[in-house]
Amino acid sequence: MSASAFHTPAPVRELPPIFAALHEAKNKSGKSFETIAKDIGRSEWWTAGLMYGQAKPELRDIEALSKSLNIRMEYLNEALGESFIPHRGVGEWPPKDPVVYRLYEALLVYGHPLKHIIHEKFGDGIMSAIDFKGDVQRVEDPAGDRVVITFNGKFLPYKRW
Amino acid sequence: MSASAFHTPAPVRELPPIFAALHEAKNKSGKSFETIAKDIGRSEWWTAGLMYGQAKPELRDIEALSKSLNIRMEYLNEALGESFIPHRGVGEWPPKDPVVYRLYEALLVYGHPLKHIIHEKFGDGIMSAIDFKGDVQRVEDPAGDRVVITFNGKFLPYKRW
Amino acid sequence: MSASAFHTPAPVRELPPIFAALHEAKNKSGKSFETIAKDIGRSEWWTAGLMYGQAKPELRDIEALSKSLNIRMEYLNEALGESFIPHRGVGEWPPKDPVVYRLYEALLVYGHPLKHIIHEKFGDGIMSAIDFKGDVQRVEDPAGDRVVITFNGKFLPYKRW
Amino acid sequence: MSASAFHTPAPVRELPPIFAALHEAKNKSGKSFETIAKDIGRSEWWTAGLMYGQAKPELRDIEALSKSLNIRMEYLNEALGESFIPHRGVGEWPPKDPVVYRLYEALLVYGHPLKHIIHEKFGDGIMSAIDFKGDVQRVEDPAGDRVVITFNGKFLPYKRW
Amino acid sequence: MSASAFHTPAPVRELPPIFAALHEAKNKSGKSFETIAKDIGRSEWWTAGLMYGQAKPELRDIEALSKSLNIRMEYLNEALGESFIPHRGVGEWPPKDPVVYRLYEALLVYGHPLKHIIHEKFGDGIMSAIDFKGDVQRVEDPAGDRVVITFNGKFLPYKRW
Amino acid sequence: MSASAFHTPAPVRELPPIFAALHEAKNKSGKSFETIAKDIGRSEWWTAGLMYGQAKPELRDIEALSKSLNIRMEYLNEALGESFIPHRGVGEWPPKDPVVYRLYEALLVYGHPLKHIIHEKFGDGIMSAIDFKGDVQRVEDPAGDRVVITFNGKFLPYKRW
Amino acid sequence: MSASAFHTPAPVRELPPIFAALHEAKNKSGKSFETIAKDIGRSEWWTAGLMYGQAKPELRDIEALSKSLNIRMEYLNEALGESFIPHRGVGEWPPKDPVVYRLYEALLVYGHPLKHIIHEKFGDGIMSAIDFKGDVQRVEDPAGDRVVITFNGKFLPYKRW
Amino acid sequence: MSASAFHTPAPVRELPPIFAALHEAKNKSGKSFETIAKDIGRSEWWTAGLMYGQAKPELRDIEALSKSLNIRMEYLNEALGESFIPHRGVGEWPPKDPVVYRLYEALLVYGHPLKHIIHEKFGDGIMSAIDFKGDVQRVEDPAGDRVVITFNGKFLPYKRW
Amino acid sequence: MSASAFHTPAPVRELPPIFAALHEAKNKSGKSFETIAKDIGRSEWWTAGLMYGQAKPELRDIEALSKSLNIRMEYLNEALGESFIPHRGVGEWPPKDPVVYRLYEALLVYGHPLKHIIHEKFGDGIMSAIDFKGDVQRVEDPAGDRVVITFNGKFLPYKRW
Amino acid sequence: MSASAFHTPAPVRELPPIFAALHEAKNKSGKSFETIAKDIGRSEWWTAGLMYGQAKPELRDIEALSKSLNIRMEYLNEALGESFIPHRGVGEWPPKDPVVYRLYEALLVYGHPLKHIIHEKFGDGIMSAIDFKGDVQRVEDPAGDRVVITFNGKFLPYKRW
Repeated sequence: MSASAFHTPAPVRELPPIFAALHEAKNKSGKSFETIAKDIGRSEWWTAGLMYGQAKPELRDIEALSKSLNIRMEYLNEALGESFIPHRGVGEWPPKDPVVYRLYEALLVYGHPLKHIIHEKFGDGIMSAIDFKGDVQRVEDPAGDRVVITFNGKFLPYKRW
Repeated sequence: MSASAFHTPAPVRELPPIFAALHEAKNKSGKSFETIAKDIGRSEWWTAGLMYGQAKPELRDIEALSKSLNIRMEYLNEALGESFIPHRGVGEWPPKDPVVYRLYEALLVYGHPLKHIIHEKFGDGIMSAIDFKGDVQRVEDPAGDRVVITFNGKFLPYKRW
Repeated sequence: MSASAFHTPAPVRELPPIFAALHEAKNKSGKSFETIAKDIGRSEWWTAGLMYGQAKPELRDIEALSKSLNIRMEYLNEALGESFIPHRGVGEWPPKDPVVYRLYEALLVYGHPLKHIIHEKFGDGIMSAIDFKGDVQRVEDPAGDRVVITFNGKFLPYKRW
Repeated sequence: MSASAFHTPAPVRELPPIFAALHEAKNKSGKSFETIAKDIGRSEWWTAGLMYGQAKPELRDIEALSKSLNIRMEYLNEALGESFIPHRGVGEWPPKDPVVYRLYEALLVYGHPLKHIIHEKFGDGIMSAIDFKGDVQRVEDPAGDRVVITFNGKFLPYKRW
Repeated sequence: MSASAFHTPAPVRELPPIFAALHEAKNKSGKSFETIAKDIGRSEWWTAGLMYGQAKPELRDIEALSKSLNIRMEYLNEALGESFIPHRGVGEWPPKDPVVYRLYEALLVYGHPLKHIIHEKFGDGIMSAIDFKGDVQRVEDPAGDRVVITFNGKFLPYKRW
Repeated sequence: MSASAFHTPAPVRELPPIFAALHEAKNKSGKSFETIAKDIGRSEWWTAGLMYGQAKPELRDIEALSKSLNIRMEYLNEALGESFIPHRGVGEWPPKDPVVYRLYEALLVYGHPLKHIIHEKFGDGIMSAIDFKGDVQRVEDPAGDRVVITFNGKFLPYKRW
Repeated sequence: MSASAFHTPAPVRELPPIFAALHEAKNKSGKSFETIAKDIGRSEWWTAGLMYGQAKPELRDIEALSKSLNIRMEYLNEALGESFIPHRGVGEWPPKDPVVYRLYEALLVYGHPLKHIIHEKFGDGIMSAIDFKGDVQRVEDPAGDRVVITFNGKFLPYKRW
Repeated sequence: MSASAFHTPAPVRELPPIFAALHEAKNKSGKSFETIAKDIGRSEWWTAGLMYGQAKPELRDIEALSKSLNIRMEYLNEALGESFIPHRGVGEWPPKDPVVYRLYEALLVYGHPLKHIIHEKFGDGIMSAIDFKGDVQRVEDPAGDRVVITFNGKFLPYKRW
Repeated sequence: MSASAFHTPAPVRELPPIFAALHEAKNKSGKSFETIAKDIGRSEWWTAGLMYGQAKPELRDIEALSKSLNIRMEYLNEALGESFIPHRGVGEWPPKDPVVYRLYEALLVYGHPLKHIIHEKFGDGIMSAIDFKGDVQRVEDPAGDRVVITFNGKFLPYKRW
Repeated sequence: MSASAFHTPAPVRELPPIFAALHEAKNKSGKSFETIAKDIGRSEWWTAGLMYGQAKPELRDIEALSKSLNIRMEYLNEALGESFIPHRGVGEWPPKDPVVYRLYEALLVYGHPLKHIIHEKFGDGIMSAIDFKGDVQRVEDPAGDRVVITFNGKFLPYKRW
């Protein structure tokens, strides 16, 4: 095993090998998701999602990724181009890892109250998880820096028929 | 059954009756969570959480809630005061309701990539779900208004020992 | 137990009592969902969904339902009006009942191929289950009449961000 | 790994290798399921089902598929001919992928109401998932194109004995 | 509790009360399923299924059952007549009770081999569980009497479309 | 992969390789279970069970099987002889494949009523799944041929101690 | 609640009320299972099983139990007589209670080795759980008394057919 | 695959390869667990447990086993010596195999009554599954030989603190 | 509902009513577990366990508890005396409540490494959960007070037999 | 397989191969966790956690580990350095192994009472599993040595927002 294979995050090991290859290239490049995201003109979180097999890139994303990570375009396009169909949902579930679990717990505790507020603010409908974008920021705070995560989805009202 | 009992949201039916009583009073008052939150000087989402049994109020919260919803202070303090221990986690899980499911799905798809970004931005640690605050906003958008949800938790680095 | 209570379908017994009351009234009226749907100007399947707690009516739906089933408007509006928040998802799951199981089995067998076709025809995205309408028809056939069920949802392309 | 192996959809990776080979050939040919379906004189959805191991072809289907995808008839007949027994049910279940989940959710929400309508329209019985055909169409719509899926199964009345 | 309520079999306690009432009447009458089946002109197993809420009777079945068990026709027809929709599937599952478990075990062990034989004898298709009849016999045997259970279902070939 | 390996039924792939080898030999021989069963003087269903690892043959069964399928006796005896301990229970469970599911569904629906009949006909006890034999027949019927499956097990009364 | 109701063991609370009544009577009588077993001429463990709804008594058992626990014969016979059908399997499962868990753990650890020994000592077959008797003894030991539990079941060889 | 590999029992296939090697050696030697147990001066059941990875041998056990099965001591000690940590719990669970299931069923039915008897005979505590020994005997019986299994564990009273 | 009933912690609501009564009395007395523990001469954690139905008191514990909480001795002895059999294991599991979940997570993460250390320090065996005592302390710390929980159980070596 | 590979503990086999390599090196060195912990200046339990992939070392930990276990620094840093993201949660869950199960059982029994005590001693909040340290000691005791495990986590009060 090449040394850099150690860096494949656990959930990536359940995906096709292209994604481990992307992580190897990323590690070799020393680039963060933030840098790669800038290189390809997308957001940081979506870019991470892409490298976990959870998003489908456009041709221009593939080209930019090819440059950013120094992977042959032909190979990358073969793997992530037209014929690539993301199979969404990745990692063990419910999550045992504490980082993901805390987000899950926030839903366990605050999910149903949130539904009630959405109903009050918007009426009967949902926040789309498709027409969706997210953001993660580090916000400095003297009492300890904070993780600020934003879910931003279009409201879709239930249709009556 | 009194008519207003129809308004008890499904997850509240699994909690002690005080919470159904809170929802009845809220419905009778015609107030939204936003208004009640202003009345008690807390945020909207936390206030909804409180009314789903997911938070513990201070004495001043109970006093303000008593006024806001016109419930006898004595009764409310008996129920939600010193001896009240929130048992957190509410509603069926994994969620079948589509509103809560969409949030759950966002974690299924984007949760593990998010963990990776947190690692890059902060190092080895988690976002606290305890020293945590959240926010829900309706953001107007000509292409359809958007639900914007913010999770804001303190970063807690893993200690080595 | 009043005799008509026998007619409450099994999944309705897990809902708030208003829905059993609707089914009692329907049975007393002798009307089918098709007739009630015409009375309220909605489709047959949505109307059935409404009576299983899976949809939220507008005021005019409540008025029409009140007339169609001869239930006091005041009572119905109290139960299904502004403050009513549908908690969607009803009945045991995975289904043991053979009627629902056959639909479930069709997804077990043909669901993933269907995803592939949707990808080919539309690109990366989903069929909305919110901006959705459905239809059920009996189609006569000399070899045995056929159940024809239509799912009709807006295609929602995944956004890149 | 040959580059085209990247295109094997996730659920196909749990099937015997013949099905990955079919998908490789399909990708190399550049043909859609719609085209292959025309080539073999079957419907699009059934053809996709066949390529996910969910259907059993006749000899003439195998011959046509051999031509359409340019796979040696001998090999294909060996794999999908007389001795081939489809083991139906494919992919993780309950589905985490959002495309399949939306169909699943439609059953969670509308499945039991649908059973009630079938009972009203046909009496006590089921829609066959065996004497069954399905169809998927893209219907243009200025408000966004729509996915229209049809389930068409023979009604089978419960026998009394 | 009336003494005869002791005789309600465990799975019946999860059904609407009409079925407990049927079992009470059966116990009071002292009739076996075999006798009741003869009274109503149906088979023994189907009759037992009916009394566990797993079948839908015709009007003439209800009339005959009313006579056989001396239950008022009006009441019985109200409960099991036109508006009654069987919700099939009864009892804890997987079964803990050893009698039902042995049948379940026979499928665990011999179910997949049986599928293979059905495929050889009939081709690609299933045995219907709808156009189905069953039979249970006690067959005397000097080495110990035997339970002989017959499943008899129409073969339904998979349609190609 | 040799072409005939395609014919290994899905549940056999979870067993030790000897069983795949048996199925390969069977496919090469072109013999049905019915023929092999005659060759070895056993019933068809038991013979299929044997080839799914669910039964233990006697020496004479191994000899006959060796002849019937043209497999070297030494090899077969090594694999299925004295030291072979069947590990019973094969295939995914609960079954997703529709053929096996229909049998499972018949138990879901009719299993508990069956227990009641066995109690009436025999008293407190079970049908043995060990001193058990089964049979599958194709019965011609102008309305569609029928699958007739017989479970035949010794009645074992519960002992009091 | 009568005070003696406190003594109903947790698993008994899921059974029909007759079994709680038996435990109340037992507590009032101050008799142990050992004494009751002697009174009715059965073993201690079977007698405990009877009082947890896991066995079916003969008429003479009911008569003796009626005397032993001073319960009216008529009532007891109504409840446990001819029409009583034990629904076997009692208590939460897998067990959380440590006493039952230790037995369960012994099977987790030693169950499969035990199967191997049974195969060596008896050939292909099972130990009956029907023609079965058990025993529990306290064996004095200076290093701490020991619980000695015996399972004694008839060996049933698999039949070949 | 060497022929003797066929004899690896199913649960052993989930353990590290040393255990399959032990079973191969056992099969080659033709020795039963009873004989091996005598060779090493341990009980039969514990010896079987050892060969399923469920026990940790002392040095003298390893030496004796090395002789008994003619396996090189050095190799055996490397595998089962000081550094070997048994990971207890082996085989699918809940068990599908009928031999193990019958033991499991005996607990389902008689486990909670047994707890009650232990409480009566010993007070509040458990039977140890650690300071535990077991025994399996074949007891001849004209009505059919019997499997007699003994669980013998030290009683451990709950400490109050 | 009496006001003090609001104070029954969620897991207690699944226990027999005596335990809710104990919590009511505790709330009325205003005593903490620490105080009650001192009153009865036991540790704080065990005393809390007792009031959650997880321990069995001696007569002197009942007498002291009766005084401490001002509950009639006769009543308390009836409920928790000789005939009381604790059914251990309380609350939803796996835990959704964050307080209990953190302990659970500590095992998810550190449980298997802990097993390895126990093996190194003690050899092959377990820490008893029966001959066990625990302790909870608040330890002041300028960086935030700490919860210090101690598990103290006797080491039990596996016996060889 | 190299002989030392036998020593890989079962849960480590599910981790990337670096962790098996660490255990091999540890076995070859003959060092205990206690010794390695001293070598690297960390606690014993954390060090074990590190070698089960549950902690992230600092550079100085890697350097010390490299010396302690005589593993090339370059290799170790590649594997456990900057890019290594621990995926926490290891081993089957719920645990079947008795050592880990006893800890789990202690939570089943005493977890919810513990939550109540934490609430009394600290108010509404949790014990952190992140700002956490643990300890395991062998405490000599004439009645049998004891395992003493300490969980020490910072108290985190729930924030109101």
